[in-house]
Amino acid sequence: MSQATSPDAQHEHYFADDARDAVYRAIFSRRDVRGQFLPTPIPDETLARILTAAHFAPSVGYMQPWSFVLIREADVKQRIHAAFEEANAEAAEMFEGQRQEIYRELKLEGIREAPINILITCDRDRAGPVVIGRTHIKAMDIYSAVCAVQNLWLAARSEGLGVGWVSIFHQQALKEIIGLPERIIPIAYLCLGQVSHFKEKPELEAAGWRPRLPLEELVHFEHWGHSDADGADKLKAALRAAQQAASTRRRFALD
Amino acid sequence: MSQATSPDAQHEHYFADDARDAVYRAIFSRRDVRGQFLPTPIPDETLARILTAAHFAPSVGYMQPWSFVLIREADVKQRIHAAFEEANAEAAEMFEGQRQEIYRELKLEGIREAPINILITCDRDRAGPVVIGRTHIKAMDIYSAVCAVQNLWLAARSEGLGVGWVSIFHQQALKEIIGLPERIIPIAYLCLGQVSHFKEKPELEAAGWRPRLPLEELVHFEHWGHSDADGADKLKAALRAAQQAASTRRRFALD
Repeated sequence: MSQATSPDAQHEHYFADDARDAVYRAIFSRRDVRGQFLPTPIPDETLARILTAAHFAPSVGYMQPWSFVLIREADVKQRIHAAFEEANAEAAEMFEGQRQEIYRELKLEGIREAPINILITCDRDRAGPVVIGRTHIKAMDIYSAVCAVQNLWLAARSEGLGVGWVSIFHQQALKEIIGLPERIIPIAYLCLGQVSHFKEKPELEAAGWRPRLPLEELVHFEHWGHSDADGADKLKAALRAAQQAASTRRRFALD
Repeated sequence: MSQATSPDAQHEHYFADDARDAVYRAIFSRRDVRGQFLPTPIPDETLARILTAAHFAPSVGYMQPWSFVLIREADVKQRIHAAFEEANAEAAEMFEGQRQEIYRELKLEGIREAPINILITCDRDRAGPVVIGRTHIKAMDIYSAVCAVQNLWLAARSEGLGVGWVSIFHQQALKEIIGLPERIIPIAYLCLGQVSHFKEKPELEAAGWRPRLPLEELVHFEHWGHSDADGADKLKAALRAAQQAASTRRRFALD
């Protein structure tokens, strides 16, 4: 790290075009990685940076309710993988006909191949019983922990690392294997590592499972169901152009 | 937008140091903005880019469960603000003594000042009853919508725009004002706009309400409560260094 002095706040306010573009590139080229992990170890400095990115997520009442359980030992990964297998067998049975066939072909986790797994948790009692901003919506602490997941994911992408979120578990099995106390909720079980490549499209889109939805159909004006407003057509055209740019080039060209 | 052809995937795999640094800069200089909004309108192209960033969040089973209600009319903002005021008066009563005095001094929203408010919602039925990856943890769709919030927040930061998440509402009041159907859950009520400046530190940290926690104390090895492992000391030193760099310079210098 250089010994540069603290940057001038005003200088930091605006991003140059190429810096802005880098943020969008991370967002659009981020993938949920399951099958492309390499065993290459991750340096401590890199791991520290991406965990710090998670730690700088927004949190309700500055609760910072997250913790990070790092899993690198093969026997722990093996137990987690067995818990996944059990839940996944149940999951497959929930789909019918051809959907079930496709489901069984999908690789949905990289638990054993990824050099590091990270369980991000939420401590519901971290800041006492009354928390600013959580007085009316109790789940705000859980939402904060999810923001930490997304920060970590984008930081990892900018480091050239892939992340996969594995969610096919009985939550209780996960709690028992990792030994979580009652008040600690497992939020995201993440596989992290270098990858051979990032896929051009999300895997479920490429597999024809579901398409990317047209963004302009997801935008409402003032009230739910109102698709019309002053200037709505112009905004919808901009939304179509932005989605097209993001889908085909995975980043915005500079204006 | 330029007419550049689709970038080579391998070229896109790694980020140059300054691009990586830009992602961290967005993460570390992002703030929850309440009091610094300017009325300057936001161009459609900018709004389209940050909504596209939200739309490219990860989602369980590629559900894309989010929608975006854009609120720009003064009378709708006014009704939302009244709902905030009602909940906030209740919230203040939950704190005792000096904490309540500090609480009443805090500005916790910028609903009327921000040119655009955005309600991000989650449609729990968007992809039918059985969703890949949501077979065992039903809240995964809500987590996906929260990832969209964080993508939007970081994209906005890279555009020089501030975002504030207002969570002090009775959820039912919000649903009624916006007219949300039963299956649609309001996830995040966001205020968006240009700002006079971004604060150096989170406001609750600067106000002495709660400190930034030491990250190395939030890391466990293999099992909850295990703070020791091969190489743990070296990783903890790297975590301290990274947190220090992020706190004081708000970005990592290039290695």
